[in-house]
Amino acid sequence: MDKLEMHHLIMAAKARKGLSWDDLANAVGKAPVWLASVCYGMNSAPREVATHLCEVLELDDQVATTLTAFPVKGWDKAIPQDPLIYRLYEVVGVYGPTLKDVIQEKFGDGIMSAIDFSMHVERIEDPKGDRVLLTLNGKFLPYRSW
Amino acid sequence: MDKLEMHHLIMAAKARKGLSWDDLANAVGKAPVWLASVCYGMNSAPREVATHLCEVLELDDQVATTLTAFPVKGWDKAIPQDPLIYRLYEVVGVYGPTLKDVIQEKFGDGIMSAIDFSMHVERIEDPKGDRVLLTLNGKFLPYRSW
Amino acid sequence: MDKLEMHHLIMAAKARKGLSWDDLANAVGKAPVWLASVCYGMNSAPREVATHLCEVLELDDQVATTLTAFPVKGWDKAIPQDPLIYRLYEVVGVYGPTLKDVIQEKFGDGIMSAIDFSMHVERIEDPKGDRVLLTLNGKFLPYRSW
Amino acid sequence: MDKLEMHHLIMAAKARKGLSWDDLANAVGKAPVWLASVCYGMNSAPREVATHLCEVLELDDQVATTLTAFPVKGWDKAIPQDPLIYRLYEVVGVYGPTLKDVIQEKFGDGIMSAIDFSMHVERIEDPKGDRVLLTLNGKFLPYRSW
Amino acid sequence: MDKLEMHHLIMAAKARKGLSWDDLANAVGKAPVWLASVCYGMNSAPREVATHLCEVLELDDQVATTLTAFPVKGWDKAIPQDPLIYRLYEVVGVYGPTLKDVIQEKFGDGIMSAIDFSMHVERIEDPKGDRVLLTLNGKFLPYRSW
Amino acid sequence: MDKLEMHHLIMAAKARKGLSWDDLANAVGKAPVWLASVCYGMNSAPREVATHLCEVLELDDQVATTLTAFPVKGWDKAIPQDPLIYRLYEVVGVYGPTLKDVIQEKFGDGIMSAIDFSMHVERIEDPKGDRVLLTLNGKFLPYRSW
Amino acid sequence: MDKLEMHHLIMAAKARKGLSWDDLANAVGKAPVWLASVCYGMNSAPREVATHLCEVLELDDQVATTLTAFPVKGWDKAIPQDPLIYRLYEVVGVYGPTLKDVIQEKFGDGIMSAIDFSMHVERIEDPKGDRVLLTLNGKFLPYRSW
Amino acid sequence: MDKLEMHHLIMAAKARKGLSWDDLANAVGKAPVWLASVCYGMNSAPREVATHLCEVLELDDQVATTLTAFPVKGWDKAIPQDPLIYRLYEVVGVYGPTLKDVIQEKFGDGIMSAIDFSMHVERIEDPKGDRVLLTLNGKFLPYRSW
Amino acid sequence: MDKLEMHHLIMAAKARKGLSWDDLANAVGKAPVWLASVCYGMNSAPREVATHLCEVLELDDQVATTLTAFPVKGWDKAIPQDPLIYRLYEVVGVYGPTLKDVIQEKFGDGIMSAIDFSMHVERIEDPKGDRVLLTLNGKFLPYRSW
Amino acid sequence: MDKLEMHHLIMAAKARKGLSWDDLANAVGKAPVWLASVCYGMNSAPREVATHLCEVLELDDQVATTLTAFPVKGWDKAIPQDPLIYRLYEVVGVYGPTLKDVIQEKFGDGIMSAIDFSMHVERIEDPKGDRVLLTLNGKFLPYRSW
Repeated sequence: MDKLEMHHLIMAAKARKGLSWDDLANAVGKAPVWLASVCYGMNSAPREVATHLCEVLELDDQVATTLTAFPVKGWDKAIPQDPLIYRLYEVVGVYGPTLKDVIQEKFGDGIMSAIDFSMHVERIEDPKGDRVLLTLNGKFLPYRSW
Repeated sequence: MDKLEMHHLIMAAKARKGLSWDDLANAVGKAPVWLASVCYGMNSAPREVATHLCEVLELDDQVATTLTAFPVKGWDKAIPQDPLIYRLYEVVGVYGPTLKDVIQEKFGDGIMSAIDFSMHVERIEDPKGDRVLLTLNGKFLPYRSW
Repeated sequence: MDKLEMHHLIMAAKARKGLSWDDLANAVGKAPVWLASVCYGMNSAPREVATHLCEVLELDDQVATTLTAFPVKGWDKAIPQDPLIYRLYEVVGVYGPTLKDVIQEKFGDGIMSAIDFSMHVERIEDPKGDRVLLTLNGKFLPYRSW
Repeated sequence: MDKLEMHHLIMAAKARKGLSWDDLANAVGKAPVWLASVCYGMNSAPREVATHLCEVLELDDQVATTLTAFPVKGWDKAIPQDPLIYRLYEVVGVYGPTLKDVIQEKFGDGIMSAIDFSMHVERIEDPKGDRVLLTLNGKFLPYRSW
Repeated sequence: MDKLEMHHLIMAAKARKGLSWDDLANAVGKAPVWLASVCYGMNSAPREVATHLCEVLELDDQVATTLTAFPVKGWDKAIPQDPLIYRLYEVVGVYGPTLKDVIQEKFGDGIMSAIDFSMHVERIEDPKGDRVLLTLNGKFLPYRSW
Repeated sequence: MDKLEMHHLIMAAKARKGLSWDDLANAVGKAPVWLASVCYGMNSAPREVATHLCEVLELDDQVATTLTAFPVKGWDKAIPQDPLIYRLYEVVGVYGPTLKDVIQEKFGDGIMSAIDFSMHVERIEDPKGDRVLLTLNGKFLPYRSW
Repeated sequence: MDKLEMHHLIMAAKARKGLSWDDLANAVGKAPVWLASVCYGMNSAPREVATHLCEVLELDDQVATTLTAFPVKGWDKAIPQDPLIYRLYEVVGVYGPTLKDVIQEKFGDGIMSAIDFSMHVERIEDPKGDRVLLTLNGKFLPYRSW
Repeated sequence: MDKLEMHHLIMAAKARKGLSWDDLANAVGKAPVWLASVCYGMNSAPREVATHLCEVLELDDQVATTLTAFPVKGWDKAIPQDPLIYRLYEVVGVYGPTLKDVIQEKFGDGIMSAIDFSMHVERIEDPKGDRVLLTLNGKFLPYRSW
Repeated sequence: MDKLEMHHLIMAAKARKGLSWDDLANAVGKAPVWLASVCYGMNSAPREVATHLCEVLELDDQVATTLTAFPVKGWDKAIPQDPLIYRLYEVVGVYGPTLKDVIQEKFGDGIMSAIDFSMHVERIEDPKGDRVLLTLNGKFLPYRSW
Repeated sequence: MDKLEMHHLIMAAKARKGLSWDDLANAVGKAPVWLASVCYGMNSAPREVATHLCEVLELDDQVATTLTAFPVKGWDKAIPQDPLIYRLYEVVGVYGPTLKDVIQEKFGDGIMSAIDFSMHVERIEDPKGDRVLLTLNGKFLPYRSW
């Protein structure tokens, strides 16, 4: 079973049971964004999380095994067109050099890790229209000379 | 004066005075990321902010006028290679479809605005290595039928 | 059922019944361009519209459910070659910077929304050759500082 | 004098005199979008319009001559990133096949001309936020066999 | 039946009957290049031509119906490598700006239509090697101001 | 002197003298398309033609020498956007495989040469709008086995 | 049968019979590079060569007919990565302008034909490591004015 | 002095003295293709060859020093359009997989070196039109396991 | 059997037997990186290694035969996105010109062979986090004049 | 002073003094590859290293200041063609998935850091031709769930 087939089985089971990402994340004790990324095949799950998730969704063990496999992370090489996703690229395009400057002024020469990293989505109620709050949290990795 | 020349004048004055983005942002009562993006030529400033900033940096009025001009926002069409900026694209690439699913499950069919939008950077002290906290906050815009 | 299969079923039923987009749009009380875009899988329909459309076309409920799913909007990344569609890109290419200038002079720094948006097509009779009238109507979204 | 130099001279004169595209268009008896496109170097002006415009802007005859030259129309080959312009491409991308279907159902096999063509921008007041109304009007050209 | 399947059926029938494009074109009273382009799925045929052609080739009515469908014209986005076709692109590449200048000097600002258009191929006997004579005939469309 | 400088000198002299491509072609006894392509730097001229042309245009001998230099033929790698030139690519895109089939049916396996080649433009008067007649004439080159 | 299927049948028969390209080329009285290119579907064979080859390989007449079909020559549009093939592109890239200069100095303005063309591969024994000798032989085609 | 300036100085001196690549190659005891590639900045020359060449061309020692510098070999990333150079790419595109098969059948798994490599151009007189003979000679490098 | 099918059969057998690349490499007396590259279809194995490996994995002789076939080495033309692989490209991108300079200063004008080449991966224990040690060893190939 | 100007000044001083990267690296107590990458503008130097290097090369303090600036790391987006650098990309292309598998089998799901990273070049004497030994050493960063 590859990650794509696993993804389709999980999405179908999730729809069948009427569970949200929040529900599933609470059930296995993990954050919704991370759990969804695992189910989209972009991260691997520890064995016990994989097993637990498959119990909740009543999926067999092969799905759990595939959840633990180390993924090859590939994505749309050109900037994707779906408006929700494009807007995220637009933010990174417009603010990229700004963020580099602000972060390196605060931390020195280095980067924010995309590996030792976490992310959360929250809904902020607002009378003029609710807002999406996205939080990214990554370890700062300084360049070292040798 | 175009936005690029304005940018160079501001960066030189900022270095000369030894001021950080936090210092400048506090001086004019705005957030550091937004102010830096204005100085990188990717946003326009209201007249009074532009004037105030030029007073702090001792720059003449032509810089202030250029700060208020509506920018043509262009950026590197291919995904840029600088490691700090690339990691941001990697995050958006790895988590794009995940975020679309998590956000639309919470809000319905629509997008997070990149126009009615704000962003902040914070440094989180951590004994295992300090962390970068990035916060994005955008209005949710639902699709409407007609 | 995915959006592509849904599209083929709708197009076949529409041809079988000899109904035009105007006929279908009148039947469900919506505009033809929006309805066609939903049937091409590029927008989602509210439940009642989806159900009504499937009754008119005598299609089963799975089609209606697929009509309500939130689409991933993707399209030809390179500029497409079909002459009718290419001419639209040509218009946007030739007049893009002109429109930016004319719109921002009228409204200030910001954009025309492609989300809170509607579009119509009309046929204008003309002895020298009939004309296509295309109307785009989008909310203006101003940039805000923070 | 090439079209780019002409463009810069006109933009500077227009700013100096504090005239809008509407003002200039009224002065020479033409539509603002067409006139702006001529000043951006994407269309050629008839001799008398060019001369009249240069009188209003107090520019010399070389500018008028350059306004009458037939332009080589080139633009950003990749889809541009400026948010206002990108949203127009997004509309054409999302609705391209829809428009082809709706137009050809109304008119037969053929295209909407981008040559025998006009376009207008209007501001529609709206308490929930003003709206941009864009009108495109092109002759329908049917394919012919031979 | 889509245009590709239609194309394969026609090519097979044409080979089976040993008919050339000239034979078929004479039979239905049309030009060979136009008729071949219809059979390659790049143009639509009027009903009576489609029916007549299918009689000559002994193909059923579904082929005729598909011949009348309005095609989505797509082709190889990059310049194709087949030497015969590449040489045509080379001609257009080498002589493109030359032709623009020569045509616009003769006709004014405008274009040669690719819609109201016809094309012919002839063989010119020549003792030093026969020659291909290609004739393109398109209506001139002038740009108009508004 | 390179081909670009030569081109600008010739275009300026041609405008100054008010001569058309037809005038120049008649003066030197050559075809207008070929002569224009030489002046655009895409072909080399025999010495006597170059000298004759420079006498007519009152340009010095360095221009004539540059006209005889063998050009490096380069052009816009992506399909160009100018509407007049794009329509030529559209014709080649739409009719490329059709022409290959029609030509090879008439001539056997081989190509139409773009080297041993000539081209002409004519204006055909027509009450419904004048037409552009483009004639391409290239030697057929058969593939040979070895 | 298309060229790809033909290619697979020939390669399998060639392996089954343990024949090299030299063996096959000798059998049909042709050069190995040309014969291999025909079997890769990049050239067409005269009828008698095709028939002879199919007798040697014990393949049926449909393969022979496909060998005589005029191919659409397509190949990897981007420069391919296989090291043996890439090195050939590297040679053409490094020495392209050099060869243009050396050839045109010897022959005048024109090209080396890739149609009226032949190529051979030989193995040169060498104590420091055997060498590949590649010989290309193409007719020079001069540009002609008109 | 960089390789480009060196190239221009050498080409000018070569034209001034009326020397061909054959003349220069004979004078310094090297092959014309190699010498031309050095003068195009794509190879480095040993000190004594560089000095000798500069004496023949009456160029100063800085040119000789630049001739000995190790070049960064870059070239047109996309396949170039000049017809003479394009035909070379066409040959490599059409015959690439054929050559891989023929060479590896003769030599085993490995490549023809583009480093330990030489190339020659000859003119073959022929009553039907003279021919270009191109000879490439590269060491075979076998893959080795470890 | 092609290289892809071979790869899947080997990976499945390797997982079934619970053997690591080190285990397999020790069993056949080869290095793990080379052996893995052979099993990924990017190198060919000598007959005896192929046979031995298939005995260890209990795979039939067709797999062994496919292991000995000379591969067409192709890979992702654009820089791949998987973070582990991307970081290797980042290293080559950041340090490419540096390595060229350091190597050529040590060795003269030439290259490091990617054919006569070997590579090893080691794990270095480190209390601050274990490290990956990658060793590349390639023959230096000097450019030679002719 | 930007990184490019700094690079040119350092390279000129290094040539003038006849110092190798090894000499400079020994003088400042750092590794040659790292030091060269700093001088190519791809890494920043600590203040004392920058000052020391400028003393050795007799360059003024502005160069030292530029050496400490945090670089924007950009490089050739397409795979570069210089043979020495291309071979490194070829190695990463051929062995990328192999290395991912071998490393992740040894370390678990994660990556080799290109930030906490060092690299060395050595010359290995060999009677059959000296060899380049390249050593890469990067911290392993495991993915973590949240």
